[in-house]
Amino acid sequence: MKVTVLTGGVGGARFLRGVVDVLHPGDVTAVVNVGDDVEVLGLAVSPDVDSVVYALAGLADEERGWGRADETWNALDSAAAFGGESWFRLGDRDVGLHLVRTQALRAGEPLSAVTARLAAAAGIETAVLPATDDRLRTWIETPSGTFSFQEWFVARGHRDPVKRVRFEGSADARPAPGVLDALLEADAILIAPSNPFVSIGPILAVERIRRALERRRVTAIAVSPLIGGRAVKGPAADMLRRLQGGTTPAHVGESYSGLIDALVFDEADAAGTDAVSALGVRPIVTHTLMRDGASRRRLAEAALDAVAVA
Amino acid sequence: MKVTVLTGGVGGARFLRGVVDVLHPGDVTAVVNVGDDVEVLGLAVSPDVDSVVYALAGLADEERGWGRADETWNALDSAAAFGGESWFRLGDRDVGLHLVRTQALRAGEPLSAVTARLAAAAGIETAVLPATDDRLRTWIETPSGTFSFQEWFVARGHRDPVKRVRFEGSADARPAPGVLDALLEADAILIAPSNPFVSIGPILAVERIRRALERRRVTAIAVSPLIGGRAVKGPAADMLRRLQGGTTPAHVGESYSGLIDALVFDEADAAGTDAVSALGVRPIVTHTLMRDGASRRRLAEAALDAVAVA
Repeated sequence: MKVTVLTGGVGGARFLRGVVDVLHPGDVTAVVNVGDDVEVLGLAVSPDVDSVVYALAGLADEERGWGRADETWNALDSAAAFGGESWFRLGDRDVGLHLVRTQALRAGEPLSAVTARLAAAAGIETAVLPATDDRLRTWIETPSGTFSFQEWFVARGHRDPVKRVRFEGSADARPAPGVLDALLEADAILIAPSNPFVSIGPILAVERIRRALERRRVTAIAVSPLIGGRAVKGPAADMLRRLQGGTTPAHVGESYSGLIDALVFDEADAAGTDAVSALGVRPIVTHTLMRDGASRRRLAEAALDAVAVA
Repeated sequence: MKVTVLTGGVGGARFLRGVVDVLHPGDVTAVVNVGDDVEVLGLAVSPDVDSVVYALAGLADEERGWGRADETWNALDSAAAFGGESWFRLGDRDVGLHLVRTQALRAGEPLSAVTARLAAAAGIETAVLPATDDRLRTWIETPSGTFSFQEWFVARGHRDPVKRVRFEGSADARPAPGVLDALLEADAILIAPSNPFVSIGPILAVERIRRALERRRVTAIAVSPLIGGRAVKGPAADMLRRLQGGTTPAHVGESYSGLIDALVFDEADAAGTDAVSALGVRPIVTHTLMRDGASRRRLAEAALDAVAVA
């Protein structure tokens, strides 16, 4: 079975790892958010792409929850001592990847081509595709002003309530090479348990990707990022409350209106089952917390099992 | 006493540190070689400027002889694993400085301004001036071909015999702001025990710097980098033999023909004293090996003592 997974954020990367562990890695394609890409100290940082690369290559720091295992922080410390910016935590091993990517991008290589090289170098068989090679950036409108995603999320600790999410460049952004094929040729499409607004939203803001999902001929299944109406990590629950009016599975389902056939959500939210059905979306209730390799594989299996019946 | 020191390489940085330890740091100006500057992984690396900054800030690794103390190498290892170049050893703390500099240069800041900021951030009172803000690069002609300095020195281990040293950009290179003033206003000019061809040569290849030295009204004193006709480290002796015909103090003195009034050299080379005098250059024989802080201060004192009598 060929599966294409839309993903962003660390939870998305973990889920993707589960899918890859269950299927043949070469049968999985990841379409990854680039809306929170950021330039730090002149380095082109693609946090969501890197979370995927690190998760699939077994390089991720599982305890910290982001970045690389066995990481050190000397380059950033030194840069800060010499007057450089240090608000965005870049580890030394992480910087190594950013250096290679930044050099390639400056030489004119598209992000998708660089990413393919980086993934291959890390021994990854799964296709890792940025949603677009064009510049697409997430902006967060708040009562305190409009901020780039990372400024809002990291520098300001996502404390400002979100009035609206905007995607700079989305009108002109084209799907990166391979993305539409991956959506057309997949036997199923999965949406990882990522933040619908800032992790999956930027992917769907690329019009031809959204249209491909709307016109899909195969089953599309989303996994809710919420457990008991709360985010495991990050601002997903706050954003659902403000932008979608609540944090039940149906609110998650509505954020993917017309794009999914089934929604996987946690037993803690089982009370919301009927409301999901009422959307015309098949509810699939299971344990969704990914504590370790076994639980992320189980979640992947639950989503994949639903393909047959959704 | 105000002193301006021409310097390049690690030996030069050590000597400069000795001069700064003997005088008031604010009375010393360093004019530093930029001919071996190199772009590595997209980073603008200025090895000689950095050796000076690290030496003066007490950040240098005295045992390894180059780079920073307490250094780690994870960024470079990671870059190499992701397919990046790794022939030029960049430590993580070193990378931090290069990131700050590269970002500033790309934003249009001249190298001299960036360097002043970096030095100030490191608490350095001594003025650290790159010889020029313009692009000036050292090329090494050998029987195997012509190589950039770092390709010849690092990648090929300076094994190819040098036929000629060329300085790309020297015809148009202007002294960086402050360099001519530092030469005009100094009470003495010192040339550090650096390689005359590839460390001091690129500085003197800036025509207005060479002319300022030729027309100096104060004493200029060079310190030989050779001890017993051999380099403490690096290719200086080989180059003197090939390009100047020998490795005696007089051969060193000839490489600064018309530019110096006295030459400090080691007791091991005392047999060459008369030949130095015959050049019209005052010979000053002393211990020149810099093992530690005390010996580099003594060498600086020997050179500064000569100012009065040369």
